[in-house]
Amino acid sequence: MAQDMTLLWGSGSPPCWRVMIALEEKNLQGYNQKLLSFEKMEHKSQEVLDINARGQLPSFKHGDVIVNESYAACFYLESQFKSEGTKLIPDSPAEQALMYQRMFEGLSFYEKLNTVTYYDWFVPEGERHDSALKRNKEALITEVKLWEGYLQKLGSGSHLAGPSFSLADVTVFPTVATLFRFGLSAERYPKLGEYYALLKERPSVKASWPPHWLENPKGQDTLKDI
Amino acid sequence: MAQDMTLLWGSGSPPCWRVMIALEEKNLQGYNQKLLSFEKMEHKSQEVLDINARGQLPSFKHGDVIVNESYAACFYLESQFKSEGTKLIPDSPAEQALMYQRMFEGLSFYEKLNTVTYYDWFVPEGERHDSALKRNKEALITEVKLWEGYLQKLGSGSHLAGPSFSLADVTVFPTVATLFRFGLSAERYPKLGEYYALLKERPSVKASWPPHWLENPKGQDTLKDI
Repeated sequence: MAQDMTLLWGSGSPPCWRVMIALEEKNLQGYNQKLLSFEKMEHKSQEVLDINARGQLPSFKHGDVIVNESYAACFYLESQFKSEGTKLIPDSPAEQALMYQRMFEGLSFYEKLNTVTYYDWFVPEGERHDSALKRNKEALITEVKLWEGYLQKLGSGSHLAGPSFSLADVTVFPTVATLFRFGLSAERYPKLGEYYALLKERPSVKASWPPHWLENPKGQDTLKDI
Repeated sequence: MAQDMTLLWGSGSPPCWRVMIALEEKNLQGYNQKLLSFEKMEHKSQEVLDINARGQLPSFKHGDVIVNESYAACFYLESQFKSEGTKLIPDSPAEQALMYQRMFEGLSFYEKLNTVTYYDWFVPEGERHDSALKRNKEALITEVKLWEGYLQKLGSGSHLAGPSFSLADVTVFPTVATLFRFGLSAERYPKLGEYYALLKERPSVKASWPPHWLENPKGQDTLKDI
């Protein structure tokens, strides 16, 4: 079933990781995949551009169908393989609403993470300002506290949108994992720490763990003080 | 049915407009609504903060269910009112994939629009650079050309994800309309111009047209040369 799928991806990229978790959860192991290097600019290679005019990873193809945007691919996989593997969209209107809400708040969360951890990558040297970096860091702290509060409210052992694992976890967990990779303190954010520890052991997450994180388990400490 | 819904919104905000179009398409007229002013910072008022910790518009409530993120609200409404009004998610896998893909590319489109039209709003005075604004403008031009190409490929009279109106149109049309409000040339981008002219006449779009655009039909010319 998965033999007619191809994923081009980069290690440690949250958008790529989302799609890989979704594929695992839907029992779609065995898809064709190719690990490309952002450092070597392979995301701008002809192989990628042929299916993704934006030259971005993930790039994903299922038969003749191309769905590159990570959220799009997750929705597509859940819709096409509804009865396979984990059910990723809950039935109850309230749980469903919370799932959608957290999924899309997740985009702000990811963006705020990037504006801190990849500031030098996104902003050319002559345009960098300490005031901007400080503001970005404050915005990230506010955001992290918001999610800590969400988890606190849901109670121990909960997933992001309630008792069950859902598309909210598929899409937002890679952001949470990246925060810890960059040194976030599980003492200061115990609920996020607990959530991270819980999901880290999930088979779909283990199977898709970024290979360069496995090779080099020590991350950065950019976020240790936030 | 819509009496237990409340929408807090701002005029001309594409995220608010998305939800309003979705409500119209699902025949959910008659919802409670309150127009708030961004200029007067009413999106940071207690009334908003009570249901939206981010202090953003739209803020949307259906009974006890809160779904503030515009994409989340659109998905929620389509899911809860599947058989009412317009069917917003197509059945065919290929059309569905294209719809999801365009919806999420639509977020980049909207962001690139904002970095040009609201540069001074988002970037404090001491941190502004002509080089950044020039780069943002170039990125927007590349993006606009991409969408012009998408429409060209689909052929005359098409919607964003194929022959039928879908969630891709609900979420991306407000961005297209804003481009024209800021002076985009329909001569230079004829397919976008055609799409804009087609959707402008759609009852859901007419019913939710930004009131301050109606009062003052002449927009800005920020984008007339792109």
